[in-house]
Amino acid sequence: MRFRFKQPLPLSLLRQPQAASASAKFRSVSQHSSFGVAFDIDGVILHGANPIGNSPRALRKFYNDSGSLKIPFLFLTNGRYSESSYVSSCASIWNLTAYLCVEKQDSLLLYPSGRKQVKYHRLIVGGGIPESRRALELSDILGVKILPSQVVQGHSPFSTLLKRYENEFIVATGKGEPAVVMSEYGFKRVVSLDEYASHFSNIDPVAQYKRWTTIQESNCSKNSDKIIHHDYSKNVKAVFVVSDPVDWGRDIQVLCDILTSGGIPGKKDWHQPPLYFAADDLQYQAAFPSERLGMGAFRIALESVFNRIHDKPLEFTCFGKPNPFVFRNAETILAHLLQTCSPGDVGTGNGDSGSPSFRTLYMIGDNPLVDIKGAQQAGYPWFSILTRTGVFRQRENHTKYPADLVVDTVEDAVAFILNREDAL
Amino acid sequence: MRFRFKQPLPLSLLRQPQAASASAKFRSVSQHSSFGVAFDIDGVILHGANPIGNSPRALRKFYNDSGSLKIPFLFLTNGRYSESSYVSSCASIWNLTAYLCVEKQDSLLLYPSGRKQVKYHRLIVGGGIPESRRALELSDILGVKILPSQVVQGHSPFSTLLKRYENEFIVATGKGEPAVVMSEYGFKRVVSLDEYASHFSNIDPVAQYKRWTTIQESNCSKNSDKIIHHDYSKNVKAVFVVSDPVDWGRDIQVLCDILTSGGIPGKKDWHQPPLYFAADDLQYQAAFPSERLGMGAFRIALESVFNRIHDKPLEFTCFGKPNPFVFRNAETILAHLLQTCSPGDVGTGNGDSGSPSFRTLYMIGDNPLVDIKGAQQAGYPWFSILTRTGVFRQRENHTKYPADLVVDTVEDAVAFILNREDAL
Repeated sequence: MRFRFKQPLPLSLLRQPQAASASAKFRSVSQHSSFGVAFDIDGVILHGANPIGNSPRALRKFYNDSGSLKIPFLFLTNGRYSESSYVSSCASIWNLTAYLCVEKQDSLLLYPSGRKQVKYHRLIVGGGIPESRRALELSDILGVKILPSQVVQGHSPFSTLLKRYENEFIVATGKGEPAVVMSEYGFKRVVSLDEYASHFSNIDPVAQYKRWTTIQESNCSKNSDKIIHHDYSKNVKAVFVVSDPVDWGRDIQVLCDILTSGGIPGKKDWHQPPLYFAADDLQYQAAFPSERLGMGAFRIALESVFNRIHDKPLEFTCFGKPNPFVFRNAETILAHLLQTCSPGDVGTGNGDSGSPSFRTLYMIGDNPLVDIKGAQQAGYPWFSILTRTGVFRQRENHTKYPADLVVDTVEDAVAFILNREDAL
Repeated sequence: MRFRFKQPLPLSLLRQPQAASASAKFRSVSQHSSFGVAFDIDGVILHGANPIGNSPRALRKFYNDSGSLKIPFLFLTNGRYSESSYVSSCASIWNLTAYLCVEKQDSLLLYPSGRKQVKYHRLIVGGGIPESRRALELSDILGVKILPSQVVQGHSPFSTLLKRYENEFIVATGKGEPAVVMSEYGFKRVVSLDEYASHFSNIDPVAQYKRWTTIQESNCSKNSDKIIHHDYSKNVKAVFVVSDPVDWGRDIQVLCDILTSGGIPGKKDWHQPPLYFAADDLQYQAAFPSERLGMGAFRIALESVFNRIHDKPLEFTCFGKPNPFVFRNAETILAHLLQTCSPGDVGTGNGDSGSPSFRTLYMIGDNPLVDIKGAQQAGYPWFSILTRTGVFRQRENHTKYPADLVVDTVEDAVAFILNREDAL
């Protein structure tokens, strides 16, 4: 493995002016202290649905022999998605230990082994899935038990807006099941943009060239039985971009209609309903050799068009990394996880009563503009580690957002952490 | 009918400093002179596939009783499309005087009456169609014989680039049959972006959520028998946006891949292949109550994203209105049409030998930023008339790009022209 610090000397780890951070980093490795780890997923743990950098072996080191968590960690992702893992997670939900998966038009059919083939589970391939299902998906791929609370997605903070929009008419967009994600957070009057747009004739002038998959077709929707009829003549009170949009042209058109009309397409009103994005990453590493455009690119496209047809500039809020809110939220969750860790384990707190405090929190990511920038903005006790398995591939550290440490793989990062924390 | 000039007095028609223009506009109406008319289509002649402003009756006044053209006119459109008229134009191509049209998945089936239903014509609903088919389509809707030379679409000027790209590997995108349009101009190695993208695995990270219609499925493609196999490892030498893109996200992603890589997705190269747009209109009036986003909006979205991920700003060329080239080209075509008009008719030239010259050319449009701005930039002998049946709906003249005349409908515009030219 090859480690590469900001500078040749460990002194370079000092992040001025945060002397407190330095003190955390230069304690003796023999001294016990609490620490936690946040992993990005895409480009660090997985490429698509495939583990990379020996991530399963690396993660097993966070559990003791009995399989219980000994070091608190979580996944901090702006939320991508892989089809095969989605299939396996749905199979887990339905307790299918073995099944035959058959692709049929826009859906997948899962035939449980040993049953008649007329009995099958139909699901629409989709992302933007709830934390509970993402946890099952990751457990299945990585071979360790991941709790829903260990999966912090870009849209997870949307749940903090429940009090404001619980009973308001809101629209959710993005691949997969954005409305299901929001309804599982407790929003009672949410509708997907697919469904919303279908109630306005000719709203999309090129609709005739497309055939869309909507969440209503999905048997994976736990809330399909809760679907209620909405009054589409009512103002949309807010719009949430939950996952990467699929139909950029239609979404930009309909969002411009909603946001320039005060919430009713075809009307004119200068009041813009609030717009929330689950993330703002310009690009991300997927299965294609070069990075793909992310939600941040969609936001730029929407904003540039909106600002040309509307007098007032687009107003919006972006959650997800590098938003410092996400890192503060992660610290709170890791503190809860730390209290569940086996007493006496390396990862446990320093013995104080009440909520434990961390000497160091490690952010392991592949994207300098998202993971590293986010950890730096969050400041103490965050320590950033950049892998070369995703967006970042360079030999030297990133120029604009240099990580505290650069390694080849997530396994190298974990080895460094456990060695540094004397946790082997 | 209500006429509204720039100013209350005809003097207001003077467009300084073009004194020549003034002399044309203040001649006695009894004095014969040559003139021609250019009509925008969407928002002036049609809404979707439906005639508006009594356009069929207005256009019949340009023909004598025998049905031959007596006043030169053409359609100057940035190219939209209507499904039903497309069906009728295809039926005309196949000499179907009567047929049953059945929608089936992503295509339409035309069953000729009186034949066995197993014998049918399948077509993919699509725009971006060749001038020859658009002429048939308009003839069918408007009840007059429109020649292909009378249909000047946004992409028509692409034919002037034939010498440069005739045997080069180029990509064409937009709804309908962009590659067929280009191949009918004579380009020999053109492929649609739909087809091009399908040769690169995972190039579109959300492709699994879509089902696309490609021109390869269309029996309407006159060139389907000419389809050749391309070498996708070769550099793309140029990209042409022929009609409104359908899949903005995929197109922006793949265009960024091509344009930042020197023509081979996944590679890195600072040389950007040339990019051509058939139009640059931000919005246009379609069937929905408020305007829809046009090719100009797509260009803005692409440019804003490209400029964020690439060091050099996007370079491109936009044809179509308001590009002055389009109006010069229209004048040349109208001059040819004028020579075919019945001798002695009002529209004929002033008796000089050689190519006739026009005293006045009228541009009738609904979009101040496209039709009126274009006519003004073209200058003498163009005279702009703005209708209230499309994008523009205001009582007063447009503030930034005031037309020489504002009327309610195209029929009002034609009545004004014929009265002014003493042509009734």
